[in-house]
Amino acid sequence: MTTESVSATTAVTVLGLGDMGSAIARTLLERGHSTTVWNRTASRTAPLVAAGATAADSAAEAVRSSPLVVLCVLDYAAVDEVLAAVGDAVSGRTLVNVTSGSPEQARAVQRWAREHGAAYLDGGVMGDPPEIGSGEVLLPVSGSREAYETHEGILRELGSPTYYGADAGLASVEFMAQVALGYELLIGFLHTLRLVREEGVDPAEFADRAAETVAMYPPLLKAIGEAVRDGEYPPDLGPLSVQSALMGDLVEHRRTLGADTVRMREVQELMAKRVADGHGEQGFSSLFELLGERG
Amino acid sequence: MTTESVSATTAVTVLGLGDMGSAIARTLLERGHSTTVWNRTASRTAPLVAAGATAADSAAEAVRSSPLVVLCVLDYAAVDEVLAAVGDAVSGRTLVNVTSGSPEQARAVQRWAREHGAAYLDGGVMGDPPEIGSGEVLLPVSGSREAYETHEGILRELGSPTYYGADAGLASVEFMAQVALGYELLIGFLHTLRLVREEGVDPAEFADRAAETVAMYPPLLKAIGEAVRDGEYPPDLGPLSVQSALMGDLVEHRRTLGADTVRMREVQELMAKRVADGHGEQGFSSLFELLGERG
Ligand SMILES: NC(=O)c1ccc[n+]([C@@H]2O[C@H](COP(=O)([O-])OP(=O)(O)OC[C@H]3O[C@@H](n4cnc5c(N)ncnc54)[C@H](OP(=O)(O)O)[C@@H]3O)[C@@H](O)[C@H]2O)c1
Ligand SMILES: NC(=O)c1ccc[n+]([C@@H]2O[C@H](COP(=O)([O-])OP(=O)(O)OC[C@H]3O[C@@H](n4cnc5c(N)ncnc54)[C@H](OP(=O)(O)O)[C@@H]3O)[C@@H](O)[C@H]2O)c1
Repeated sequence: MTTESVSATTAVTVLGLGDMGSAIARTLLERGHSTTVWNRTASRTAPLVAAGATAADSAAEAVRSSPLVVLCVLDYAAVDEVLAAVGDAVSGRTLVNVTSGSPEQARAVQRWAREHGAAYLDGGVMGDPPEIGSGEVLLPVSGSREAYETHEGILRELGSPTYYGADAGLASVEFMAQVALGYELLIGFLHTLRLVREEGVDPAEFADRAAETVAMYPPLLKAIGEAVRDGEYPPDLGPLSVQSALMGDLVEHRRTLGADTVRMREVQELMAKRVADGHGEQGFSSLFELLGERG
Repeated sequence: MTTESVSATTAVTVLGLGDMGSAIARTLLERGHSTTVWNRTASRTAPLVAAGATAADSAAEAVRSSPLVVLCVLDYAAVDEVLAAVGDAVSGRTLVNVTSGSPEQARAVQRWAREHGAAYLDGGVMGDPPEIGSGEVLLPVSGSREAYETHEGILRELGSPTYYGADAGLASVEFMAQVALGYELLIGFLHTLRLVREEGVDPAEFADRAAETVAMYPPLLKAIGEAVRDGEYPPDLGPLSVQSALMGDLVEHRRTLGADTVRMREVQELMAKRVADGHGEQGFSSLFELLGERG
């Protein structure tokens, strides 16, 4: 008996059949759940109906078909539109909204769900549609603990869920932070590809080497997290006195090539300030002390 | 017979005994090389003399003691000062300069070495002093191919050397690009730690999760490198039409918390432009097309 066959099948409704919603509905069908689907553009239900789903004529009708409703549309403008049409049909059901958005937006839907008598879970999908159904997909989830415990099994069929707490905004905090960190790396990487190509280097070959280097950073990220938590900043990539000595040359090199210098000038200035303040023996992590705090 | 014992021992001089130069000199001594050391502040030679090195009274005298000279000082201002004192003593020897700096600075020392009758190699040390002597330390090297082939064995005792070509600036191109990419990731990470702490999340716990996520990025970096090389941009983290829908909420969330938005606003604008230009089905990699080219 495999682990999967232990989890009971549930009737589930999926609202929103873009790439991600369709992948979710398809995975639920494959796992044997009775699945009702709805999408604003009705034609997108066809492949799922062919795979065994039931198409509903309206979002409200779809919601009434199942105790568990997964909502996956483009953004919160779409969420608001769909939920306005659903209205009280959601009463007594559990709504799991995996549309990407901010903590405040998640909290607003949590309030809406409470007013309409539904249990609410908010989640973010960290992964690609084809990966849905594998443990590779991280699913930060927050909101009703009872709903999470009831439906954890079915969430685990979609990816690797982690419960962050009763405040529905917490999953989004994690999601937004992780997405932003990824984009920080990726946009910095694109600017760096621009730089090396300008110097005559093959971007794909540099990318292979950069991939190896980035694979070595996770232990440093953990060490920096501890340094920030503790407010103690041991030299990490060497002392700041040594690191900062390079920054002027680094910025100047980029400037000469017309490459972006935004972050490197920021790092240069922060390092210079820490060194001037007598913290030259500390590590990169200590720049945290200079990042603006909210008024 | 181990690989190490095959490589012949050479007389080596190390100029500069900061953390990095001292680690290099110590490793050379451990591998059995007759090692002469010099440092501006003479007292720093003592621990190495205790470990078997010979201290020279001047940089020129130190250079005359060995056919191979490693130079490792803080920056190129220091390089220039040391080489001015060395002068013609370098004639007929090989100078390996592993001081961090820009391609132009490396090329200038390559010209100086040619004028003074020395073979020249420029290198960057990617690693911490305690790691010197392990394969973990990457050593991009460029300059005289003959000198590289002659001394590859001894470089391999210090770390993992890779030869980038006869232009002495090429190792620095690699070094500067890799260092900058690391700082892009790390400064973005610090800003993100600031954000999550503002939301009440433990920075060290988030760092552990971020480390796991970052460990999943290397294949994506390789894919983006290929996309940029080929000028074909398949959807990577989903199509830009979907990715861009989140950016407004992401920027707004950061703004509300007083967290840095520099790179995220840039990503938002670049994505919006690509989508407006009809490339919404492409991936993040396609933002490369919008990064400024040199005049
Ligand atoms: N694709 C990915 O790689 C990926 C990865 C992680 C997270 N996500 C998240 O998953 C969510 C869905 O993404 P996706 O890839 O499925 O996007 P998509 O393929 O572009 O599909 C968008 C979906 O939203 C619906 N929609 C848009 N505006 C609507 C409105 N005003 N009213 C009702 N429905 C509306 C669309 O309906 P129509 O068919 O009628 O247009 C469609 O079902 C997003 O929040 C995204 O950030 C996606
Ligand atoms: N430490 C690391 O983690 C690390 C990692 C990778 C690369 N590197 C690179 O390795 C190089 C050396 O770094 P380090 O960690 O050894 O630095 P360090 O510990 O601060 O030592 C600096 C060295 O430079 C010498 N120096 C400075 N100005 C000089 C001048 N005008 N004339 C002569 N000598 C001068 C110092 O001599 P005094 O003793 O007389 O001051 C000392 O020997 C740098 O280019 C650095 O970027 C270091």
